[in-house]
Amino acid sequence: MYKERIKRTGLESRIRTAEEAASLFRDKMVVASSGFTKAGDSKAVLKALATRAAAHPLQITLITGASLGHGTDGLLTTAHVLHKRMPFQVDPVLRHGINTGEVLFMDQHLGESAEIINEKIIPAVDIAIIEALQINEDGSIVPTTSVGNSPAFIAAASKIIVEINLSVPLSLLGVHDIFSTGSWPDKKIIPITNAGTRIGTNAIAVDPEKIVAIVLTETTDSPAQINERDDKTRAIAGHLLQFFEQEIKKGRLLPSLRPLQSGIGKVANAVMEGFMDGNFHDLTMYSEVIQDSAFHLIDAGKLNLASASSITVSQDCYNRVFSDFDRYKPHIVLRPQDISNAAEVIRRLGVISINTAIECDIYGNVNSTHIGGTHMMNGIGGSNDFARNAYLSVFVSPSSSKGGAISHIVPMASHIDNTEHDVDIFVTENGIADLRGLAPRERAKLIINNCAHASYRDELNDYFTEACKAGGQTPHLLQEALSWHARFKENGTMLRTIPV
Amino acid sequence: MYKERIKRTGLESRIRTAEEAASLFRDKMVVASSGFTKAGDSKAVLKALATRAAAHPLQITLITGASLGHGTDGLLTTAHVLHKRMPFQVDPVLRHGINTGEVLFMDQHLGESAEIINEKIIPAVDIAIIEALQINEDGSIVPTTSVGNSPAFIAAASKIIVEINLSVPLSLLGVHDIFSTGSWPDKKIIPITNAGTRIGTNAIAVDPEKIVAIVLTETTDSPAQINERDDKTRAIAGHLLQFFEQEIKKGRLLPSLRPLQSGIGKVANAVMEGFMDGNFHDLTMYSEVIQDSAFHLIDAGKLNLASASSITVSQDCYNRVFSDFDRYKPHIVLRPQDISNAAEVIRRLGVISINTAIECDIYGNVNSTHIGGTHMMNGIGGSNDFARNAYLSVFVSPSSSKGGAISHIVPMASHIDNTEHDVDIFVTENGIADLRGLAPRERAKLIINNCAHASYRDELNDYFTEACKAGGQTPHLLQEALSWHARFKENGTMLRTIPV
Ligand SMILES: CC(C)(COP(=O)(O)OP(=O)(O)OC[C@H]1O[C@@H](n2cnc3c(N)ncnc32)[C@H](O)[C@@H]1OP(=O)(O)O)[C@@H](O)C(=O)NCCC(=O)NCCS
Ligand SMILES: CC(C)(COP(=O)(O)OP(=O)(O)OC[C@H]1O[C@@H](n2cnc3c(N)ncnc32)[C@H](O)[C@@H]1OP(=O)(O)O)[C@@H](O)C(=O)NCCC(=O)NCCS
Repeated sequence: MYKERIKRTGLESRIRTAEEAASLFRDKMVVASSGFTKAGDSKAVLKALATRAAAHPLQITLITGASLGHGTDGLLTTAHVLHKRMPFQVDPVLRHGINTGEVLFMDQHLGESAEIINEKIIPAVDIAIIEALQINEDGSIVPTTSVGNSPAFIAAASKIIVEINLSVPLSLLGVHDIFSTGSWPDKKIIPITNAGTRIGTNAIAVDPEKIVAIVLTETTDSPAQINERDDKTRAIAGHLLQFFEQEIKKGRLLPSLRPLQSGIGKVANAVMEGFMDGNFHDLTMYSEVIQDSAFHLIDAGKLNLASASSITVSQDCYNRVFSDFDRYKPHIVLRPQDISNAAEVIRRLGVISINTAIECDIYGNVNSTHIGGTHMMNGIGGSNDFARNAYLSVFVSPSSSKGGAISHIVPMASHIDNTEHDVDIFVTENGIADLRGLAPRERAKLIINNCAHASYRDELNDYFTEACKAGGQTPHLLQEALSWHARFKENGTMLRTIPV
Repeated sequence: MYKERIKRTGLESRIRTAEEAASLFRDKMVVASSGFTKAGDSKAVLKALATRAAAHPLQITLITGASLGHGTDGLLTTAHVLHKRMPFQVDPVLRHGINTGEVLFMDQHLGESAEIINEKIIPAVDIAIIEALQINEDGSIVPTTSVGNSPAFIAAASKIIVEINLSVPLSLLGVHDIFSTGSWPDKKIIPITNAGTRIGTNAIAVDPEKIVAIVLTETTDSPAQINERDDKTRAIAGHLLQFFEQEIKKGRLLPSLRPLQSGIGKVANAVMEGFMDGNFHDLTMYSEVIQDSAFHLIDAGKLNLASASSITVSQDCYNRVFSDFDRYKPHIVLRPQDISNAAEVIRRLGVISINTAIECDIYGNVNSTHIGGTHMMNGIGGSNDFARNAYLSVFVSPSSSKGGAISHIVPMASHIDNTEHDVDIFVTENGIADLRGLAPRERAKLIINNCAHASYRDELNDYFTEACKAGGQTPHLLQEALSWHARFKENGTMLRTIPV
C-alpha cells in the first residue's frame, strides 16, 4: 500500500521507524514541523522524540505552521524538549510551560512566521518533519490536510523527515496550490484575484537528497471539538447576520457578501452556521482554516469556494468529507499560510474577517491573547493578518463569562493585539457596535451601551464620564484603567461588589 | 500666466476668489482637501472658510491626506468649523481641541484612510478642495507637491474647487504617478516591483462639470522645520548605521540595503543624513514623504530613487530643488497615499521602516500617538502601514527627555499603536535592541539593558524581576504597570524619587 505513495525510485530504502528517525535529533537543533490548526501535523516522530528525551535529554527550537494535535506539544513540554516554540499553540500543558517561563514562546502573525526563516534571522532549520500524502516521481512532496509553513521549511531545512500518512485518501491530490513569492529583490506579485484563483503547483518541490527518513503512519488528525450553538452564540450570530442584511439593503454588500474569514471558536462557528438560514448565496471563503460549517454550507449549495491553509473538522465531518473528497475538491484550495494570510490578497479581495476577542476596551482595542495582560492563551494566530487588512474586521465575544465574573468589555485592554484602527465591528449577545468612521469618544458610547453586560454597564459609563473630565482623545483614569483585572485576580470577579 | 495652467477650454470662467469659493460651504458638509505632511494643501479656500465662519457659523467633517500647513487646522479650530477631522494632524491648536473633546478626531492608518470614502461608510464628500499645478485639456488635474488622497476625493466629491498654485513650477509635470486599484470585486493588483516602477498616469482624471470654482494662489508650502543633529540623535543614528553595516557583513543586507521609509522627526532625519558618511550606495526610498535628507543623498549620488506621497522640505531646500526640478525629477515618484503606504507593495519590496516612538514598553509594544495614554499628539500616520509590513521595522526614540523627567522606555505602554509583533529593532542613544526571533522575556532584558536611560534601568529591572515571579508570557504587575505615567502626571517626573 505504501509503495504507491513513494513514487520516487530509491527513496523506499529510507523508510525508518519513528524511533529511528527520532534518534537524528540533537541538542540545540532548530526543528520545523508541518501542522496547522491540528491538521497535517507530525503524528509519529515528534512523539517519539518526546519519549526519547527521557533517556537522552535535549532541547530544541520548534517551529510549526500553527497548532499541533494529539497532545504533542504537551508531551514535548513534559519531556522538557522545548527551549523555544513558535508561532502558535493551543495546548494546556505547553501553555502552562510558557506562562511559568520554562518555554520561550514567540507569538507571531501566522502570515509572517516564515519570514525569520526565509530571511535567515534565526539559525538555519536542521530538520523539517513533514506529513505527506505522497512523494512524487520528481521527489516533490504532496502535503495532507494542511500546507502551513511546509514549503518554507522544506526549502530551508538541511534534512527532511517525511511522515507518509496512509490514512489520508489519495483523492486529496490536486487540492493544494503551492506558490512562493521567492526572495528579495525579486519577490513576486501574488496574482490571486478571487478566493479560488490557482497560481501554483500541487506539490512542494524538494531536493530528494535532503530526505533522510520516511516514516509511515496511519493516525488521523485530532478531531476538532464541536461547539454546539447556545443562546449566547446564537444571539451574537443573529446580530451579525442582521447587520449583513442591512448592509445589503444599503447597497454596500451583495448577498454573496465578500470572501469570509472566520476564526476558531464557538461564536465564529455559530456565525458560519447562521449563513445556512439567511438569504445569502454564492458565498466564498478566504480564510486560514476550513471547519465543519464550511462543508455544511457547501452541501447546502451556499458556499462556492473555500480557500485556506488547512482543513480541521470534527470526526463525523472528517469521515463524511474524506470518504467522498472528489465531490468537495472543486470547492477547496489549500495554500501556504503566507498566501492564505497574505496582506496583499486579503486587502485586494476585501475579506470580511470574524475573530473572537478575549476582551475589548471602550475605545475598540482588542486583546486576543493574554489573560489579565500577562498569561498567554493561544497566540495572535492570523487574527491581525486578517483584521489589519480586511474590508470589514469583526470581533465577537460574549459580554461576560464565568457566571458574570468576567466582563469582556473593560475600561482598558490589558494587552493589545488588534488596535482600535483595525476593529470595525464589535458584537456580543447584547448587540453590535459599528465603529467605522467614529472617533474614540463616539465608539465608547456604542460599545458600552450596545455590547457590555448590564451588570457592568453603569460602571463603564461612570468610568468614561470621569475619564472625560480629565480629557484626551482616549480619556482614561490611569490608576483605575486596569483595576478590573487586578480585582479579578484578587477576588475572582471583576464585579465591584463581591456577591455573597 | 494662469492661462497656460488652465488648458481645458471653458473653465477659465469658473475662476473665483477664495471668499467666493468659501461661500459654497454649508453646515454639516463633508469636505475633503488635498494636503499631505503640509505639502500641496489648500492655502486659500480653507483659510477663507475659517474667516467666513465668524459671520456664518458652520461645522464640517474635514478629511485630508495628512497634515495641513500654514496653521490652517488651528484657524479652523478657533473658528469652531471642525466637527470631525481625519486622518492626521500636527497642529497645536487643533490638538488642544481634540483633547478637550471639542473636535472629534479619527486617527487613521494613512494608507487606509480613503477606504471609508471609497466604500461609502461615511456620507458622500460634498466638496473637495484640490491644490493643482494645472488642469489639462481633458480636465484632468495635476497635483502639486503631494498626491495624498486627492484621487479618492476627486472621484467621490460632487463638487470640486481647484486651487491653482502659480508658485509651483511646471517642471513638476511628470513627477506624479496616479493609479487606482478600482473597486471591489475587481480590485487590481498594484504592479510595483521596485521603488521606481511607474504604473499610472501623470494627472487625476475628473469630470470637468464637477469643477465649481478655480482659485488662483501663489503661496508656497509651509517649510519643514530643520532639526539639527545633536549628540542624542547622532548617537541613535550611529547605532542604527552600525547595525546595518553588521547586517551587510552577515550577508543579510547589501550596501544598497532595501527600500527605506523614514518618518518625520529629528531622529529619522539624523539617520538619513548618516547614510552620507557610510559605505552605503544605490539606496532607494519607498516612503510617505521626501525630506531634505533625501535630496542631500541624491546630490551625493547615494540615493537613486525616492518614491513617496509628498515632498516636504525646508525653505532652503525648497528653493534649491524647485528651481532646478528637471535635475531631480528622474529620481522622484509621487504616488497616492494608498499606493505609497500599500501593504502589498511594502511587503513585496521588503521595506526598511524607521519611525519615532513616543514610548516603548519592556516587551516591545510601541506608543506612537497618545501622551500618558490619553492625549493625542499627532496620530498614527503611516507608522503602522510600514511597520506592520516592513522587512525590518525600526523604532527610535531618545531614552529619556525633559531633563530626565520622561523615560521613553516604560513598564507598560500607556497606548499601543505598533504591537510587539511589528517592532523588530528599537534604538535609543544608549544602544540597540534587536528583538527579532525573541520571546517577550528575552526582549525585556535587551530593551532595558541596551536602551533604557541609566536613571531608570534599575527600576525597570526590578519591575521585570518582580513581575516574573507572578508569571506569564509578558509578566506585569497590573497595579504598577501604568504608575510611571500617573507619577509623571502628578509629580512632573517619572522618577521614583523627586529630585530636590
Ligand atoms: C480568543 C480565544 C481564546 C477565544 O476562544 P474560545 O474557544 O471562544 O474561548 P473560550 O470562551 O472557551 O475561552 C477560553 C478560555 O479563556 C478564558 N477567558 C476568555 N476571556 C477571558 C478574560 N477576558 N479574562 C479571563 N479569562 C478569559 C475563558 O474563561 C476560557 O477559560 P477556561 O478554558 O478556563 O474555560 C480564541 O479565539 C483565540 O485564541 N484567538 C486568538 C487567535 C485568533 O484569533 N485566531 C484567528 C484565526 S484562527
Ligand atoms: C512620535 C512623534 C510625536 C515624535 O516626533 P518628534 O518630533 O521627534 O517629537 P519630540 O521629541 O519633539 O516630541 C514631541 C512632544 O511630545 C512630547 N513627548 C514625547 N514623548 C513623550 C512621552 N513619552 N511622555 C510625555 N511627553 C512626550 C515631547 O516632550 C514633545 O513635547 P513638547 O512639544 O512639549 O516639547 C512623531 O514622530 C509622531 O507623531 N509619530 C507618529 C506618526 C508617525 O510615526 N508617522 C510616520 C510617518 S511620518
